[in-house]
Amino acid sequence: MINIDTLFINAIVLTMNEDFQLFKDGAVAVQEDHIVAVGDSADLQKDYQALTIIDCGGKVLMPGLVNAHTHVPMTLLRGLADDLRLDVWLMGYMMPVEREFVSPDFVRLGTSLACAEMIRSGITSFADMYYFEEDVAKATAAAGMRAICSQSVLKFPTPDAHSFEESLDYARDFIRRWKGHPLIVPSVAPHAPYTCTTEILKATTQLAVEFDVPLHTHLAETAIEVENMRNEHGMPVIPYVKKQGLFEAKVLAAHCVHIDKGEMRTMLHAGAGIAHNPTSNLKLASGVAPVKLMLETGLNVGIGTDGPASNNDLDMFEEIRLAALLAKGFSNDPTALPAKTILSMATRIGAKALHIGDLTGSLEPGKKADLILLDLSPVHNSPKFDRDPNGVYAQIIYASKANDVTDVMINGKFVMRDKLLLTLDEKSLLDGAQEYARKIDKFLFVREKSVLSKLIAIGGALEEESFEVQLKIKIANPEEVLASIENPHIEVIRKRHYHEYDTYFVFKDAEENRLRYREDDFINDLGEVDSVRYRLTLIGPSREHKVTSDSLLSRSRYFAPAGQSLRFYKEYFMPDSEFEIEKDRLRFLVKFQNTEFFINIDTILKPKLGTFLEIKSRTWGRQDAQQKSRKISQLLELLVQHPGEILAKDYLDMVD
Amino acid sequence: MINIDTLFINAIVLTMNEDFQLFKDGAVAVQEDHIVAVGDSADLQKDYQALTIIDCGGKVLMPGLVNAHTHVPMTLLRGLADDLRLDVWLMGYMMPVEREFVSPDFVRLGTSLACAEMIRSGITSFADMYYFEEDVAKATAAAGMRAICSQSVLKFPTPDAHSFEESLDYARDFIRRWKGHPLIVPSVAPHAPYTCTTEILKATTQLAVEFDVPLHTHLAETAIEVENMRNEHGMPVIPYVKKQGLFEAKVLAAHCVHIDKGEMRTMLHAGAGIAHNPTSNLKLASGVAPVKLMLETGLNVGIGTDGPASNNDLDMFEEIRLAALLAKGFSNDPTALPAKTILSMATRIGAKALHIGDLTGSLEPGKKADLILLDLSPVHNSPKFDRDPNGVYAQIIYASKANDVTDVMINGKFVMRDKLLLTLDEKSLLDGAQEYARKIDKFLFVREKSVLSKLIAIGGALEEESFEVQLKIKIANPEEVLASIENPHIEVIRKRHYHEYDTYFVFKDAEENRLRYREDDFINDLGEVDSVRYRLTLIGPSREHKVTSDSLLSRSRYFAPAGQSLRFYKEYFMPDSEFEIEKDRLRFLVKFQNTEFFINIDTILKPKLGTFLEIKSRTWGRQDAQQKSRKISQLLELLVQHPGEILAKDYLDMVD
Repeated sequence: MINIDTLFINAIVLTMNEDFQLFKDGAVAVQEDHIVAVGDSADLQKDYQALTIIDCGGKVLMPGLVNAHTHVPMTLLRGLADDLRLDVWLMGYMMPVEREFVSPDFVRLGTSLACAEMIRSGITSFADMYYFEEDVAKATAAAGMRAICSQSVLKFPTPDAHSFEESLDYARDFIRRWKGHPLIVPSVAPHAPYTCTTEILKATTQLAVEFDVPLHTHLAETAIEVENMRNEHGMPVIPYVKKQGLFEAKVLAAHCVHIDKGEMRTMLHAGAGIAHNPTSNLKLASGVAPVKLMLETGLNVGIGTDGPASNNDLDMFEEIRLAALLAKGFSNDPTALPAKTILSMATRIGAKALHIGDLTGSLEPGKKADLILLDLSPVHNSPKFDRDPNGVYAQIIYASKANDVTDVMINGKFVMRDKLLLTLDEKSLLDGAQEYARKIDKFLFVREKSVLSKLIAIGGALEEESFEVQLKIKIANPEEVLASIENPHIEVIRKRHYHEYDTYFVFKDAEENRLRYREDDFINDLGEVDSVRYRLTLIGPSREHKVTSDSLLSRSRYFAPAGQSLRFYKEYFMPDSEFEIEKDRLRFLVKFQNTEFFINIDTILKPKLGTFLEIKSRTWGRQDAQQKSRKISQLLELLVQHPGEILAKDYLDMVD
Repeated sequence: MINIDTLFINAIVLTMNEDFQLFKDGAVAVQEDHIVAVGDSADLQKDYQALTIIDCGGKVLMPGLVNAHTHVPMTLLRGLADDLRLDVWLMGYMMPVEREFVSPDFVRLGTSLACAEMIRSGITSFADMYYFEEDVAKATAAAGMRAICSQSVLKFPTPDAHSFEESLDYARDFIRRWKGHPLIVPSVAPHAPYTCTTEILKATTQLAVEFDVPLHTHLAETAIEVENMRNEHGMPVIPYVKKQGLFEAKVLAAHCVHIDKGEMRTMLHAGAGIAHNPTSNLKLASGVAPVKLMLETGLNVGIGTDGPASNNDLDMFEEIRLAALLAKGFSNDPTALPAKTILSMATRIGAKALHIGDLTGSLEPGKKADLILLDLSPVHNSPKFDRDPNGVYAQIIYASKANDVTDVMINGKFVMRDKLLLTLDEKSLLDGAQEYARKIDKFLFVREKSVLSKLIAIGGALEEESFEVQLKIKIANPEEVLASIENPHIEVIRKRHYHEYDTYFVFKDAEENRLRYREDDFINDLGEVDSVRYRLTLIGPSREHKVTSDSLLSRSRYFAPAGQSLRFYKEYFMPDSEFEIEKDRLRFLVKFQNTEFFINIDTILKPKLGTFLEIKSRTWGRQDAQQKSRKISQLLELLVQHPGEILAKDYLDMVD
């Protein structure tokens, strides 16, 4: 008899080893942190004398699940914003909130909450990527879980670094200190090719190679990423990162939704692992990864939940079920990725994808004791058939739920017994999480009250309080005005021809009630579009004063370059209504009586309002305004013989 | 103060009415079987005096979920066979097992087990379709659940009827007796256009119209169904059933995966409801229904689990989550079918699809009290944000689980309190289910031991113990033989030209060790394929006796017409190995010395074995065989001048 710590008996033992060995009345012997034997209950009870014998009562005993890709601290942002497009979700909500709230405290609390949820769903190992990753590591180790903890490096400032050099130094320190930890594998995460410079890709690869730790990244998640890569570098994502030498490291690549057979071979030769995240890929409409082909190519493909802000939970049972269903639906083949294959992706193959296949992922002597007990007897999973040897795998994939996991052991230590967590205090975690939610709600509530603060949140805006003298009349004969500009009293400094497309967002309750998205097409002498500019202008209410017959208008305006699409702004600002104005504008900058004026000849094409003459000048006070107003009247006399009614409105007021 | 039975207070009340009215600290007043008021807790506490006040402690109080399509007794077949193609799954496993086991007892037990599972996952109403539907109704009513119970009618014999007329009589009786029941809406279910004759479609429609009950059916589930319909009737499925008058009834159509905009309009005008079954459609690789377009068209689309044998559970939380994710992934639009829309499909709109929208689906005064309490506080659903008014719907769709449902009331009566079932004894249901599983395992175990019994299970086979005298030689010059047949001593009765493609399945352990799938192409005088025949032949081991220089072979053979594809048989029989033989065969039926013989001139094209002359005759005993054998030798002399070695093998033995 050999003395050991723990002997599990009377279980359906799924070893999930290469041969899918299964013991119907099986046992597992555990000594300290590792497995010493797996076999029939009767045999192991003869050979081993255990301090603790655990009768599993016919439950399934199997390796703990491997969550191949996630961002665990984002549990604290779960449900913050859903059903949005990736850019609106990321730039409108996640990034502004992360900039404001993410701290070592936030990260530790979010990680602990995530560990509670993951243990409850039978996960024993996960691959994380976030900021302040050392705090993720601390909280994970305290919860008793195994993880690849990857410190993010990006070309932008992040919550934990002003520059990528800072992140890189942080990563180096973190890796040096944590390398060799019994539960944590420290790692570095160049976030994605499109958020990293080639310098970052190279530096992070060197770091990973120097310390022989995994390199965790996002590759080919969306079709746009691949398209942009082709446009900018003439090749898709995988060849590009290969060219930067990325595959010299042990790569764990999340997503790989848009890669082809050749790219798969490249990754296979590099020994790279892939994390498939079906929920996230569907929810953000990124596409469906060609998992069947990846497996046929021989790649190690694990399954991941991705972050809980885009999932919205960390439930590997939901994830494996979806992975199985999706593979069938997308390949038009209901025999694709059968239950056994999916479960091996969530265990042995997943561990290999994370480059910890030697430690965990199957129940084999020598491997760490990372295992779970699963109850197949609940009403939603009955009855149980014995005919088909694959039946037990199908029961797990298609009908088991996270809540059926009763016990979890990691590295030889129980972290859950009979659904009771042993390393975490859920009540205090829930309270802490709710406290953050209250603060974030408040922050967003204030921000969302005003269009301006929403505008600032996505990249700032330049304020400008403008005063201008303006005169506008409708004209019947633009040619007459054009001819009149050729006048010895008027000096034309500059002439421009534009085609302008304006979309106005109208907000009922906001103080600044109109946001304009303008596309300015510059038309050259040949009548072609020479270049295009996009600008956002937030227009405050106009305060109007009559100055002689013209108007002095004052208005606060906030300008911002419009780096995102019109669609983005619509979905982000969610205006109560909107309207469009399209016009052809001939704009002259002229000097008249030693004062500069703009003369605009505007033909409003949509809606068809006709042609207008505008004369404008910036001003800074009432006296100056009165002088300029007089000059405008004189200028008008030179340009139009019988001016009609003077209009004191903006075009947008004519449309309203 | 108005006296009522029950007042729920202190809940987040989601009414799920047309305006998505929501009360953050809400209350619902219930009197007998219906809702009398919905509003703020403070207001309702002022107005109503309740016998029972239930403090919901901040949980969500919402309408019970509507499972829009299922086959509940199939809980007893859950996990019996998975990861198979639809035809193999259905014809190889489900139908043979149903033929053997489905009885009133089976149906009642399966329904009760299903009700336990459905109540636990917050379902209060469902639409069922199965056999012995009155027993489904009885068990459902006993469990206290609301259901549309639809009696299946098919053109084949079913477990409960030898003919469709029997099913139709059953349905009429059932509907007449149950019409007006407080929980059960009896209904008729012509199974699908391809399993019904036009006569059945018309008769069931008349029945549904006569009693004003819903008609439940499967429409356009697979692309093949649509293709076959186009080939046979020159139109897709919806116009075809419209032509049969089906839409005169209140139709509930499951699946509708492959319908276009025009067909949707037809269904809209007919007031038909649709049941979307995302898990089943993915698992069986049927495709993805165009739900977004259906909703835009104005159709009532509910969400269903389909039967638990193809899901493999009855969990509407999994189903609504998948419906939301899939709609986004398939439309490339992450804003498609937001959480609120999905939840209304699972409640108000689902009830309308089932034609019970006046009874249930939302919390509104006058509707039946079908409601659930849902706990949003578990660790997998924290924290909770207040900013976004859609947040609570997103929490339910993306992170809630069946296990978070704590209480269920149907028709004013609690069926679950604090996760305790009040109308069902789970223990006895589980035991009963396991007893059926044991019997089915045994039945299949015996069947699967033998290739013959598997063959019989899918449609029978005709046995034939054959004795034949056979002579076979390799020939170098077929032209010589052909010329020699023109001989005054030989009368050619018939001449045929075939091209034969044989696939042999080889089984290591089976007694009947070879199954042949033969495609016989009949070649006409112009060298074209005139017609094709498919046959399965199960070939027993040959018992060989030498009769003079020829062979007398005896062999048991079982013939069956091969109605399914070669692929079907491969996946169903799962042979240990297989090989192919392709040959060109000229076959003469001749009379020689008053005896009929077959003369075959076979050129084996795959593998390239050359050309053979076979002379064969059926026989019935040793003496007859000896006579025929002598005649064969004489015939051979007429046909070939220098015959080579006589071969006593079948072609398949030359390949092996």
